[in-house]
Amino acid sequence: MTLPKRNLHTSPKSGISPTYIPPKSVLIVNKHRTKPVVEAIESLLSYLREKHPDVRIFHEDRPDRPDGTEIWRPGTDAERVDLIVTLGGDGTILHAASLFKVGAVPPVLSFSMGTLGFLLPFHIDDFGKAIETAFEGKATVLHRMRLICTFQNKDGHTMNDVRQEWQVMNEVALHRGASPHLNTIDVFVDGQHLTEAVSDGIIVSTPTGSTAYSLSAGGPIVHPSLSALVLTPICPRSLSFRPLVFPSSSSITLRLSERSRAEAGLSMDGQVSHVLSPGESITLRASLYPVPCINRSSIVEPDDSRRGSEGAGPGKEDDWVRDINNLLQYNATFRSKALLRHSRT
Amino acid sequence: MTLPKRNLHTSPKSGISPTYIPPKSVLIVNKHRTKPVVEAIESLLSYLREKHPDVRIFHEDRPDRPDGTEIWRPGTDAERVDLIVTLGGDGTILHAASLFKVGAVPPVLSFSMGTLGFLLPFHIDDFGKAIETAFEGKATVLHRMRLICTFQNKDGHTMNDVRQEWQVMNEVALHRGASPHLNTIDVFVDGQHLTEAVSDGIIVSTPTGSTAYSLSAGGPIVHPSLSALVLTPICPRSLSFRPLVFPSSSSITLRLSERSRAEAGLSMDGQVSHVLSPGESITLRASLYPVPCINRSSIVEPDDSRRGSEGAGPGKEDDWVRDINNLLQYNATFRSKALLRHSRT
Amino acid sequence: MTLPKRNLHTSPKSGISPTYIPPKSVLIVNKHRTKPVVEAIESLLSYLREKHPDVRIFHEDRPDRPDGTEIWRPGTDAERVDLIVTLGGDGTILHAASLFKVGAVPPVLSFSMGTLGFLLPFHIDDFGKAIETAFEGKATVLHRMRLICTFQNKDGHTMNDVRQEWQVMNEVALHRGASPHLNTIDVFVDGQHLTEAVSDGIIVSTPTGSTAYSLSAGGPIVHPSLSALVLTPICPRSLSFRPLVFPSSSSITLRLSERSRAEAGLSMDGQVSHVLSPGESITLRASLYPVPCINRSSIVEPDDSRRGSEGAGPGKEDDWVRDINNLLQYNATFRSKALLRHSRT
Amino acid sequence: MTLPKRNLHTSPKSGISPTYIPPKSVLIVNKHRTKPVVEAIESLLSYLREKHPDVRIFHEDRPDRPDGTEIWRPGTDAERVDLIVTLGGDGTILHAASLFKVGAVPPVLSFSMGTLGFLLPFHIDDFGKAIETAFEGKATVLHRMRLICTFQNKDGHTMNDVRQEWQVMNEVALHRGASPHLNTIDVFVDGQHLTEAVSDGIIVSTPTGSTAYSLSAGGPIVHPSLSALVLTPICPRSLSFRPLVFPSSSSITLRLSERSRAEAGLSMDGQVSHVLSPGESITLRASLYPVPCINRSSIVEPDDSRRGSEGAGPGKEDDWVRDINNLLQYNATFRSKALLRHSRT
Ligand SMILES: NC(=O)C1=CN([C@@H]2O[C@H](COP(=O)(O)OP(=O)(O)OC[C@H]3O[C@@H](n4cnc5c(N)ncnc54)[C@H](O)[C@@H]3O)[C@@H](O)[C@H]2O)C=CC1
Ligand SMILES: NC(=O)C1=CN([C@@H]2O[C@H](COP(=O)(O)OP(=O)(O)OC[C@H]3O[C@@H](n4cnc5c(N)ncnc54)[C@H](O)[C@@H]3O)[C@@H](O)[C@H]2O)C=CC1
Ligand SMILES: NC(=O)C1=CN([C@@H]2O[C@H](COP(=O)(O)OP(=O)(O)OC[C@H]3O[C@@H](n4cnc5c(N)ncnc54)[C@H](O)[C@@H]3O)[C@@H](O)[C@H]2O)C=CC1
Ligand SMILES: NC(=O)C1=CN([C@@H]2O[C@H](COP(=O)(O)OP(=O)(O)OC[C@H]3O[C@@H](n4cnc5c(N)ncnc54)[C@H](O)[C@@H]3O)[C@@H](O)[C@H]2O)C=CC1
Repeated sequence: MTLPKRNLHTSPKSGISPTYIPPKSVLIVNKHRTKPVVEAIESLLSYLREKHPDVRIFHEDRPDRPDGTEIWRPGTDAERVDLIVTLGGDGTILHAASLFKVGAVPPVLSFSMGTLGFLLPFHIDDFGKAIETAFEGKATVLHRMRLICTFQNKDGHTMNDVRQEWQVMNEVALHRGASPHLNTIDVFVDGQHLTEAVSDGIIVSTPTGSTAYSLSAGGPIVHPSLSALVLTPICPRSLSFRPLVFPSSSSITLRLSERSRAEAGLSMDGQVSHVLSPGESITLRASLYPVPCINRSSIVEPDDSRRGSEGAGPGKEDDWVRDINNLLQYNATFRSKALLRHSRT
Repeated sequence: MTLPKRNLHTSPKSGISPTYIPPKSVLIVNKHRTKPVVEAIESLLSYLREKHPDVRIFHEDRPDRPDGTEIWRPGTDAERVDLIVTLGGDGTILHAASLFKVGAVPPVLSFSMGTLGFLLPFHIDDFGKAIETAFEGKATVLHRMRLICTFQNKDGHTMNDVRQEWQVMNEVALHRGASPHLNTIDVFVDGQHLTEAVSDGIIVSTPTGSTAYSLSAGGPIVHPSLSALVLTPICPRSLSFRPLVFPSSSSITLRLSERSRAEAGLSMDGQVSHVLSPGESITLRASLYPVPCINRSSIVEPDDSRRGSEGAGPGKEDDWVRDINNLLQYNATFRSKALLRHSRT
Repeated sequence: MTLPKRNLHTSPKSGISPTYIPPKSVLIVNKHRTKPVVEAIESLLSYLREKHPDVRIFHEDRPDRPDGTEIWRPGTDAERVDLIVTLGGDGTILHAASLFKVGAVPPVLSFSMGTLGFLLPFHIDDFGKAIETAFEGKATVLHRMRLICTFQNKDGHTMNDVRQEWQVMNEVALHRGASPHLNTIDVFVDGQHLTEAVSDGIIVSTPTGSTAYSLSAGGPIVHPSLSALVLTPICPRSLSFRPLVFPSSSSITLRLSERSRAEAGLSMDGQVSHVLSPGESITLRASLYPVPCINRSSIVEPDDSRRGSEGAGPGKEDDWVRDINNLLQYNATFRSKALLRHSRT
Repeated sequence: MTLPKRNLHTSPKSGISPTYIPPKSVLIVNKHRTKPVVEAIESLLSYLREKHPDVRIFHEDRPDRPDGTEIWRPGTDAERVDLIVTLGGDGTILHAASLFKVGAVPPVLSFSMGTLGFLLPFHIDDFGKAIETAFEGKATVLHRMRLICTFQNKDGHTMNDVRQEWQVMNEVALHRGASPHLNTIDVFVDGQHLTEAVSDGIIVSTPTGSTAYSLSAGGPIVHPSLSALVLTPICPRSLSFRPLVFPSSSSITLRLSERSRAEAGLSMDGQVSHVLSPGESITLRASLYPVPCINRSSIVEPDDSRRGSEGAGPGKEDDWVRDINNLLQYNATFRSKALLRHSRT
């Protein structure tokens, strides 16, 4: 893992690199191995072998690892990866990012397998064009901010060393889980006590995660090119607990209060990962290592007329506007103009 | 106006009458006189003249009154109306009901002109079947509760006599209107002070109105066969002002506080009707005279297979479930299974 | 259990009984046995023995059962109870009601131990006055509606006989619990499919429960003298899922969809009670047996001057207005008039 | 107006200036001239005359201008102002900022007259200490972002020259005002169509304004040290319209659709300022000229023990955490531990 650190404060829309060297290694990530995924991987492998024969192709060490790929194991001494290719749903990208819990993530090129996902810019049928754009260094990336998590015991001392750090792309949720009782969480911002939350739990989310669990819990939709932390309560026993948005320079600590009657579960991007006992806490900060996600708009032809008229050329992050409309059906207006015949419905 | 009073507490799903006498007079109501409306009225008139030649046909006294209709004027000495037929949008039904501000409303048969509406069960193309069902006394009605409004001056004395009473089908909204300043409204329930609201305004809605302005302001969706009053604040300056639902036995008073810097406008079903000065108030109660709306399900054939399998035969109020799904797109799920191709969007 | 059935549709504010017979048996319910509770029970027992020596005093069969009480066991052949006295928090009343899962509940007189609760009308220090009002038959009750639950297996057949029925006072919540994944629930109203919910879970609540979990999940506050069912989603993955309020004649079925990847837990008034497997369902209806809760206003002197001026005499349900203001801090206005000195804070 | 432009991207917590020159002119701003305000201005004037006799003291040109102040008129050729002192409520600061519609605003020192306000760090009784901190250059400021507004006619051409630009500190609200009808607004982000809003109106707010109107309309609370634009709908006729948060590099255009039946009013920081006709639009961008507001924490003694233990020394923006708790009563927990005696309430 020798990728240069990318600072959060660089433009989130910059190209991958100015003095460009094509990727020499690719990591293929898939969560499930359904028939379409298997076939897609095969096509992808033959394509890469033919067009980019020198490139090393890695895959996680799993029984179902595709032939012709080398084993790749995460960790500080992992083999260098220049490009990640994911095949699957949003969960596959979350999984790919979680393989780089510590340090930087290489650029991610994500293919959907036909179903839609919020983090999935490319349809698998277009993989050739997308791969070439990435290899030619013409792709533009959206640096999706991540949160870095550290854990503190009852005395406030850090419970983990650097290797146990954890970075998330969507959110951290501290939740009562199977306990039927409300839990009590003390929330601190930059070390200052903000509030005591009696609720099902608390979500601390990135802008990327603002369209995931946080949205379901009533949080605002935050554009992913903004660097910010979103704090959203889950079913708080209070009429006046609203979502909060903090600058990315803030640190947020969630401390399971000693008043809580039970342990609480921590979900990291939807994976139950830790359990906090009363008195223990987790602290979240913006990570220095965002996830560089290759934009859909990267590979749209410059002469694409519809794009032109919209005024958003390749490299502009505008996938998001289309996604919240197409996928979330944002502000779907009532069908007042449709035609409904009672006898035909 | 000699229609028998209908008690709110009778079943909301009962047939029009057990010892049935067919309607002897019909009031046609239309707000606008677009080409489709004009044509629809013509078809309707020839149909009625042919099939029910003895029926009197009324229309409001307006310059554009269709030929062959008699003038009808609202008021306590109005001509008796046995059936209202509306042609237009939801606003047309609201307008029809507002012609019966005092006392009872005859059953309402509502036709949409192609566009959808929440209160519009029938498409105009099916008018023959619908009219016959109504004339044969086979139609079932949903008694949509109304609110009756009385006004009080600063000393708490009633400002109107019975003739000035007002009944609404959707809601009463007391709103700052063009004044840029928040107003202050004291809310009383059954004479008891409930809260002081600093906001853009307050809505008191029927269950029918719960899918209109109240919904936009964050209120719950209340099934129209429930008798209840919904109180919904409009942009309150408080984190803890939630919508409230009261039994139909409650009376709610909105008093524009003397702290308010400006007058506030009262909208009755979307018509700006009165202005309250600081100190004045309006009191809302469930009216004894709901609006009997003929159900779409009335005219569905008993052997309609799809209906049968749903288990909801004619007479069951189930239009509503379909409407909140079809019209409001209630709980429209994210399009996670659709297929989106970037190159084709 | 021979108490007469009380019909839900009788006035919710009626006195306990017209031809009045004083209670012959009292069931004392306490969840915890803290020092104040122990002392309160002792005072209560000596008071009852002195003033009402013929009354039988029951207590649940627990190791910490107070001396001088008889064992009482729930069930269809339970000893007759004429009055329940609870000492503790809201959870104690929920527990008391849950002892009468099948059939009717006797009137409940609830004492708080100093802490506030939403269902707790009386402070323990006033127990003498409250007990006498109850024994003299002067108390007024609020009939708090309950929900009756039945369970269906994958084929839609009822899974329990009458003895396994369950009645709840607050709500039923079907929740993903410790599973990190969203579950999918099909919601039916009166047998008709309403929506498919992808969420953390679904709450079906009584008006009483509308200030409990449902409120935290974003539901409206419903006055407890209204008979209605409230359906509130918990963190739905949809922008357009709003709380719904149904008449008490409706039945609501929650069916854990076969698409759900995991089982889901059912909480009944906050007790985890059952687990549903994909395909199984639970159906909720208004129970015939509400919980008759003795009102705080019952024991306020008629000459209480403050009351008089409010216009709400004894027997009027107005505890609720005070409770949502005092306890929930409903619409707590921003402290714009308070005085804050930076140097003194 | 010769103040140097301050770039938004400089740290929002920086001191007023490194090579410090004390203010040579002060502008006193008060909206109302109540007795406490008059007295406070008098004390302030004698104080300044005694301690800083060379400083020029300005006031707006109004009939009630205090003796001993020079007339100050806004505009591009206005006299230079080095420090603004406001006396009054939040509205007074908004007014002061609106005097600098074009270009930069000098640092603002705001005194409350006893009542609380969200933007009011100092109590008037402490004015000496606060003034000295400001004159000594030891004050820290929070650069509260402003929005700059430009107007476009139906053809999309700009309707104003630079002098007609407008900068707001809280928000711009485009609202139906006194019209009873919903309006239709097309929302564009960076020139791209985002959504068509059918609603009472749309708010575009700064983080500062996120606790004002936007909060009432359901928006999130955004920390004022973040640079972002918040878009919040007012009573939208849609179940799925959520607040959005954009980076400060975005431009947002609100275009009153030609479908709207009436004009719509524009409020700038609560002042009705313009009326848009169907087809016209307004575009909002982050201004280069934030409002430098002097922090309360600036004048807290370094040895203030309570502060020290919180770890937030002078210069840290932590007023906000205290304000949302003290003023907004953020997440005010239910009074479950208080003691309520029915007989004493
Ligand atoms: N009640 C809720 O809304 C819950 C949501 N989640 C979310 O699920 C995520 C994990 O995803 P999976 O492993 O796929 O689990 P999953 O298979 O349970 O799916 C979660 C859903 O969220 C979508 N999703 C994930 N990230 C998203 C994003 N950033 N923006 C918009 N939609 C997104 C996925 O496409 C999928 O439809 C968690 O990070 C959490 O945000 C987890 C639990 C409950
Ligand atoms: N921000 C908002 O949502 C506002 C809503 N309104 C509503 O408009 C109503 C007046 O309607 P129009 O005269 O047609 O005015 P309009 O032409 O302005 O249309 C209002 C919209 O509300 C719909 N609507 C009316 N009653 C409804 C109901 N009970 N359930 C669902 N949708 C309903 C109509 O179909 C139409 O789409 C008022 O009673 C009020 O409820 C009025 C002002 C603002
Ligand atoms: N996120 C949330 O808000 C959750 C709420 N609950 C609620 O807790 C209830 C069980 O209560 P406990 O056994 O005391 O558990 P608990 O000890 O966990 O306390 C729940 C809290 O809810 C209050 N409460 C209970 N019923 C209420 C009502 N009808 N109106 C207003 N407040 C009420 C209690 O006073 C207590 O403060 C459940 O019926 C459920 O409604 C349960 C889980 C999560
Ligand atoms: N429904 C609502 O909540 C409405 C709110 N407003 C707000 O009023 C502001 C104008 O204020 P005034 O001239 O004082 O009018 P005003 O006298 O009507 O008072 C508005 C209230 O908002 C408070 N306020 C102003 N700016 C704030 C901020 N940034 N954060 C928290 N609270 C704030 C003021 O202290 C005052 O309590 C507008 O900018 C707008 O945000 C205006 C109309 C309606």
